[in-house]
Amino acid sequence: MIKMFDNISPVDYRYNEEGTTKYLSAGAKIKYMLKVECAAAEAMAEIGLCTRDVAKEICDSCSKITPEEVHEEEKKTKHDIRALVNCIRKNVSDKAKPFVHLGLTSYDVVNTSDSMRYMEFTEKILLPSLIELEKTLIEIALREKDTLQIGRTHGQHAEPITFGFAVAEYVDRLGNSILKIRNSSKNLIGKISGAVGSYNSTSLLVDDPEEYEKKVLEKLNLKPGGHSTQITEPENTLDFVHSVISSFGVVANLADDMRHLQRTEIDEIGESFEKSQVGSSTMPHKKNPINFENVKSVWKAMMPRIITLYSDQISEHQRDLTNSASSRFTGEILAIFYSSTKRMSRTMKKVSVEKGRMYRNFEMSKSHVIAEPLYILLAYHGHPDAHEAVRKIATSGRPLLENMKNDPELSKYIGKFTSRHISILNNPEKYTGIASQKTEKLCKHWEKELADLQ
Amino acid sequence: MIKMFDNISPVDYRYNEEGTTKYLSAGAKIKYMLKVECAAAEAMAEIGLCTRDVAKEICDSCSKITPEEVHEEEKKTKHDIRALVNCIRKNVSDKAKPFVHLGLTSYDVVNTSDSMRYMEFTEKILLPSLIELEKTLIEIALREKDTLQIGRTHGQHAEPITFGFAVAEYVDRLGNSILKIRNSSKNLIGKISGAVGSYNSTSLLVDDPEEYEKKVLEKLNLKPGGHSTQITEPENTLDFVHSVISSFGVVANLADDMRHLQRTEIDEIGESFEKSQVGSSTMPHKKNPINFENVKSVWKAMMPRIITLYSDQISEHQRDLTNSASSRFTGEILAIFYSSTKRMSRTMKKVSVEKGRMYRNFEMSKSHVIAEPLYILLAYHGHPDAHEAVRKIATSGRPLLENMKNDPELSKYIGKFTSRHISILNNPEKYTGIASQKTEKLCKHWEKELADLQ
Amino acid sequence: MIKMFDNISPVDYRYNEEGTTKYLSAGAKIKYMLKVECAAAEAMAEIGLCTRDVAKEICDSCSKITPEEVHEEEKKTKHDIRALVNCIRKNVSDKAKPFVHLGLTSYDVVNTSDSMRYMEFTEKILLPSLIELEKTLIEIALREKDTLQIGRTHGQHAEPITFGFAVAEYVDRLGNSILKIRNSSKNLIGKISGAVGSYNSTSLLVDDPEEYEKKVLEKLNLKPGGHSTQITEPENTLDFVHSVISSFGVVANLADDMRHLQRTEIDEIGESFEKSQVGSSTMPHKKNPINFENVKSVWKAMMPRIITLYSDQISEHQRDLTNSASSRFTGEILAIFYSSTKRMSRTMKKVSVEKGRMYRNFEMSKSHVIAEPLYILLAYHGHPDAHEAVRKIATSGRPLLENMKNDPELSKYIGKFTSRHISILNNPEKYTGIASQKTEKLCKHWEKELADLQ
Amino acid sequence: MIKMFDNISPVDYRYNEEGTTKYLSAGAKIKYMLKVECAAAEAMAEIGLCTRDVAKEICDSCSKITPEEVHEEEKKTKHDIRALVNCIRKNVSDKAKPFVHLGLTSYDVVNTSDSMRYMEFTEKILLPSLIELEKTLIEIALREKDTLQIGRTHGQHAEPITFGFAVAEYVDRLGNSILKIRNSSKNLIGKISGAVGSYNSTSLLVDDPEEYEKKVLEKLNLKPGGHSTQITEPENTLDFVHSVISSFGVVANLADDMRHLQRTEIDEIGESFEKSQVGSSTMPHKKNPINFENVKSVWKAMMPRIITLYSDQISEHQRDLTNSASSRFTGEILAIFYSSTKRMSRTMKKVSVEKGRMYRNFEMSKSHVIAEPLYILLAYHGHPDAHEAVRKIATSGRPLLENMKNDPELSKYIGKFTSRHISILNNPEKYTGIASQKTEKLCKHWEKELADLQ
Repeated sequence: MIKMFDNISPVDYRYNEEGTTKYLSAGAKIKYMLKVECAAAEAMAEIGLCTRDVAKEICDSCSKITPEEVHEEEKKTKHDIRALVNCIRKNVSDKAKPFVHLGLTSYDVVNTSDSMRYMEFTEKILLPSLIELEKTLIEIALREKDTLQIGRTHGQHAEPITFGFAVAEYVDRLGNSILKIRNSSKNLIGKISGAVGSYNSTSLLVDDPEEYEKKVLEKLNLKPGGHSTQITEPENTLDFVHSVISSFGVVANLADDMRHLQRTEIDEIGESFEKSQVGSSTMPHKKNPINFENVKSVWKAMMPRIITLYSDQISEHQRDLTNSASSRFTGEILAIFYSSTKRMSRTMKKVSVEKGRMYRNFEMSKSHVIAEPLYILLAYHGHPDAHEAVRKIATSGRPLLENMKNDPELSKYIGKFTSRHISILNNPEKYTGIASQKTEKLCKHWEKELADLQ
Repeated sequence: MIKMFDNISPVDYRYNEEGTTKYLSAGAKIKYMLKVECAAAEAMAEIGLCTRDVAKEICDSCSKITPEEVHEEEKKTKHDIRALVNCIRKNVSDKAKPFVHLGLTSYDVVNTSDSMRYMEFTEKILLPSLIELEKTLIEIALREKDTLQIGRTHGQHAEPITFGFAVAEYVDRLGNSILKIRNSSKNLIGKISGAVGSYNSTSLLVDDPEEYEKKVLEKLNLKPGGHSTQITEPENTLDFVHSVISSFGVVANLADDMRHLQRTEIDEIGESFEKSQVGSSTMPHKKNPINFENVKSVWKAMMPRIITLYSDQISEHQRDLTNSASSRFTGEILAIFYSSTKRMSRTMKKVSVEKGRMYRNFEMSKSHVIAEPLYILLAYHGHPDAHEAVRKIATSGRPLLENMKNDPELSKYIGKFTSRHISILNNPEKYTGIASQKTEKLCKHWEKELADLQ
Repeated sequence: MIKMFDNISPVDYRYNEEGTTKYLSAGAKIKYMLKVECAAAEAMAEIGLCTRDVAKEICDSCSKITPEEVHEEEKKTKHDIRALVNCIRKNVSDKAKPFVHLGLTSYDVVNTSDSMRYMEFTEKILLPSLIELEKTLIEIALREKDTLQIGRTHGQHAEPITFGFAVAEYVDRLGNSILKIRNSSKNLIGKISGAVGSYNSTSLLVDDPEEYEKKVLEKLNLKPGGHSTQITEPENTLDFVHSVISSFGVVANLADDMRHLQRTEIDEIGESFEKSQVGSSTMPHKKNPINFENVKSVWKAMMPRIITLYSDQISEHQRDLTNSASSRFTGEILAIFYSSTKRMSRTMKKVSVEKGRMYRNFEMSKSHVIAEPLYILLAYHGHPDAHEAVRKIATSGRPLLENMKNDPELSKYIGKFTSRHISILNNPEKYTGIASQKTEKLCKHWEKELADLQ
Repeated sequence: MIKMFDNISPVDYRYNEEGTTKYLSAGAKIKYMLKVECAAAEAMAEIGLCTRDVAKEICDSCSKITPEEVHEEEKKTKHDIRALVNCIRKNVSDKAKPFVHLGLTSYDVVNTSDSMRYMEFTEKILLPSLIELEKTLIEIALREKDTLQIGRTHGQHAEPITFGFAVAEYVDRLGNSILKIRNSSKNLIGKISGAVGSYNSTSLLVDDPEEYEKKVLEKLNLKPGGHSTQITEPENTLDFVHSVISSFGVVANLADDMRHLQRTEIDEIGESFEKSQVGSSTMPHKKNPINFENVKSVWKAMMPRIITLYSDQISEHQRDLTNSASSRFTGEILAIFYSSTKRMSRTMKKVSVEKGRMYRNFEMSKSHVIAEPLYILLAYHGHPDAHEAVRKIATSGRPLLENMKNDPELSKYIGKFTSRHISILNNPEKYTGIASQKTEKLCKHWEKELADLQ
């Protein structure tokens, strides 16, 4: 607890959610590297390079080592993987010592363990959190599929939709995001191909070094890429982080919309407040959309960081190491995105929908909303310049239908309209197209997809 | 020709390749929008909303309109799509006039036509150019699969590979990039769903507006997305541009590697020069890697622009228009990437491989290269601290094997080594692992994939 | 005109303003490089390295050359500066030929001419345009310094200000931006220091090569930097572009505020429409904030490009050339920023301020606005927990002052308030602090600064 | 210590240097906010708004509060500043309670304290560290001002310089960076202007609220900006972070150059190794430029983050809060830049300069280096096409001067050359222009500037 206040990163002192430490912390990094070292030993035993006892000794040692020990050792070696290896060696017999890290290069361990922990982080906590948010959105969308809301473009009232349909946008975009994150996380790759990627070292020891690589990686639930140098091809991790950042954009857009719907003048939704919560240190009456603001804000902090991953695609020859320190920051992006998905689930669950206010806002533009259907119907019934005709009667400030009746030329079209059309022109709230049906259809689709996922 | 010098963008005055104008220019944008207007009319005729004659009139008009006309009209309307519509209407009968753009909103046309032209650009010229580059790389990789080269990490000599294996890295990464671009371009979507995405207008005219949308888009070789507002979901375009930018990173890395291999002190490859070409305005002896430099440079100019697309994921409610002007710049990224792929093909085809120099560079580290196999073999044969033992004899500056023979403790291990191992220790150029076989395997794999693509 | 539609960059086909071509086009680049070549010849004549006649011949030749010629020559040389030099040489006598470009390296010409044209662009058209916008803002701020408007934080009504005070924010930020752009443009530097920056070549010809450099640059109104390699230190250009991009952020923030104030529900300002202008292709009643949207949108397209300039700070040794092509794109940023300042001036001049609507919006929160002064006065008069006390009476939904009077504990404080305080509590529209005075003071300050500038 | 391994950010578990915690940690943020609250109370006492005893009580309370307490309280209030205020109030008398935070808004405290701690961080530890690095560079530059090195452009040998001159590039660029950071840190501003920036609250309490603001800020060594809303104008902080990021670019360029000079084939400098240090986990012979790689790598991780600050320039109306969470990440940039400056000082101090190797590399191009002086001298002595003439004899592969002598046309120019020129053509190592003098001049200049700074 105390230590927290010495931290500089808000990831560590403020915005982290429980559960991420297990995958994304400094300690977790070490724990996962130890899993790779153990898997390598086990695979050696399986192909008869060492005995099963030796492998067991190594894996036992791996399971005992603490990050503190490795940290202490690193002060001497100034090399994190050598420190790790030294620690493993300390606990094993002289017979087993040579087989620790045998034939591996540091990045066989680093790349493989990073892929493994990002993949497990995704599967174990990120996807469940995203699915929870998706379910929350589906619930709201279905519940509000018939709740009339004015659609807005340019910040201006446009045509009516339903609030459920507005939420369905995010059901679909988030649904696609979930699939994209899932697929790209499954494409994260490992490598056991040595210092320059051509299996120089393992070729000394085994007949088919690619087979040996596969064996190690299978134990860790990973596959090798097509080619590697000292490192795996960077695109798989980049694609994964892209899927995270682009999903973050979807969540941030949702947050931004909710934030604007809470504007005093719009007031169509509310973010529930706990009783003792303080809105403003100086304006006691305010209830601020702080959670939605937070999500947009941390998105602005994380999104540009993808530039680092694009930059790190470029590594000289079989690798320069200028992507080593930078890649350590990837975990922060994941941790912050995860915390934003949790925050959004919590907040959306408590969002109150002000149907009355939505209706009153719609009413502001009620008489103008029918400009579009009117123009379309006029056009369909043969008016040669319907758009212009409607634009002219729209600028007067009075109800459109009234203006139309008073216009000698336009009034004659009214007789051609069907009763359904007349009904829409008289009740613009009916002019919502297939908002409700589409919402239902989309929600059903994603409910099924989610069920398949789990 | 004259006008070129009034241009401000290097895309227009310097770095464009023939062929892109057809898809990416201001004029192309208008041409493609006209295709959408025509397809919409044809679909209306098919479902009986208008006659086939009316549709034909509209399509005929669309095929006649020039960008100049639309430009003139826009000066009056200050609205590009309204200008387009007015131009189409001018050439058709009063009977057909109302059916021009009927039920469409501007972005039905803009989004759909952009997706269509990006997709056709990709299929018609970008993919062929990428495939040409890939084939060039495959040819080099296969030809040089046994050409010894020292592998480099940290800019330091590490273990030997072959130059073919080094090129095979890009065969694989570019191969994956090609598939990614192809797939993401095929996921580009259109929309015919009206001003707020709920099909308000087309619902007035047809029974199943989603069916109508599909019909229009099919004519243009596109599909609709799951949901839309005034605009399509931004993620499909973002994913496409991500695939382009991440592929650009691969190409830029290749260029960067080639550039460094041309350093005076390394000199392992050469970029052929035409006879009259000038290397430097003041140093007549220099032959500079200008094409590789150019590719890395324009990558630096284009890569950060993806931030614009991530930013444009956020659009308020059913859309604010702050992504309208910005999205016009997407074509530049595509044009520059295309020109870089052409430049790389041209340049790589002329690259000369200096095998002798590669061998001499390898020789510099010949005696140290065997540090790794030596340590691994020592370890395998039971030395309890092989890494440390080799590190110690490596620092003396003399050949490793000699030092080993002179070391009473280490010398006794030599008897345990197999003849293949001894041969490698004596001929470090054999210590290339499976570089050659892997190169061949990868090239065969991608040759097959490319054949399937075409 | 025709050619325009073959352009790919919106800079060239859509968003450019008259006047920029002279400084930022491909042709302008050549014209400015010719000025450098002429200045170098003149300086040589002054120190007696060549005759005045020779210098005159060279300068005459420079003034005749067209971009077209250089372009044709470049096809042969594949080197833009060599082409330029060849063109100059064509028109001069054999005696003068050797003095063309004598002792210069390409980037002596490129860097120097770029600095010069950016500086002149700034002085001649960018600063005047910014000053025009600043004056427009000052006029609005002064005119509206007493126009009551509700201040908004979190999108929520907070405390009242005046609209003039809100505009004064931009008067001050834009004023500071103008100074920053001006100062950083004056810091743009040139160089005449040769291929690696140590004056190797000019040292052969003159006794004090730094003196010679100064002489050339003085003619071009420039100074040298402290050190150079083949190129000038990149930070001066970076700082200049930073000043442009950060000023763009200020202008974009203004545009964004204006955009939101036009939301249907807020409606506090209007962007005037021309009579024939079309708001929406399908919704004839809409009046959209298209100019403000445009400015925010192109800001999103330009802002990330500064990453290119930060990346280009890194150049290997005495220079790698991976910043050559990328630096050609800098002119686009300048052109688009300039066009946005013009657009904003035009638009702000036509903005209508809806005072009645501002007042009505204020009235929505009138009774809650006094929460803050009430809490402060309670606290000042000794209430031990004023914030909490006011928070409690603020949640009931009824006017605060009424609630206070009904509260036995709080009501007793009323007697302690001064008449000015009571007047504010009864007339919350008076609770605007020093908004009006501060606005006036700031505007006067900037009027004076602008006068000094011109 | 233990807690460290639960951290996710490398800033907290790996790359932090001692000393930053005091300014940049979560705890420091709270400590500095307490200083603002105390200063506000003291200023109130000075103008007679409260007694000196009350101010003392408040300041005493501020000095006692721990981050832990505030953290606990925030769990209740969900508002960090309200929590802070509650904690201060707990320790003071009922008489003093109302004066805690009286008239302030949260961001009066947050913005002011952030500016203060960034300024103190800069003055107390960042500038001293930068000056240490600058001094180290000056020492190397002066020591090596006559050490011959081949200058490189395009990665190709160009003309000779001295290693001191190459280092002098960074002396000058870093010197300018230091001044820029210093000036921009001194421009960081505070504010005591209330919830919407118009001094609404303090206007109730004092006659001249701007005077009161100045009084508070003076105690904290800060000035107010020209205008504020709920927050200070963002440009001052942005300019400061720009100065840091652009300085980081300079340091990263230095690191990159040093890294390349360590390439096996170039080998002109060395990064000293401690005896027990491990270069590679698998290749015991390698000595890698890990510190230079680290600096370039963290630069790639930090540089793109400035996009967040440019994005945060845009805040709606008197402020939306989407810049609140994001601004918390600014401290990370500062901490990492600081650690990189320390790392560079340590590493540069230990850099070994391999003069012999530098000379041998120069010798590789010795005979070609004189292409430039030869062409210039030929031109100066009237050869009408010297560049072309030299280019032709440069392509043959043999020494230039020899080729020249064998060329009937060129040989006749030799007689015209002065003995100094002949001496340079015969001893190309003398062709270093004014590299040595310029190095000395620059170092003297910066030594003086640094002395003035301290």
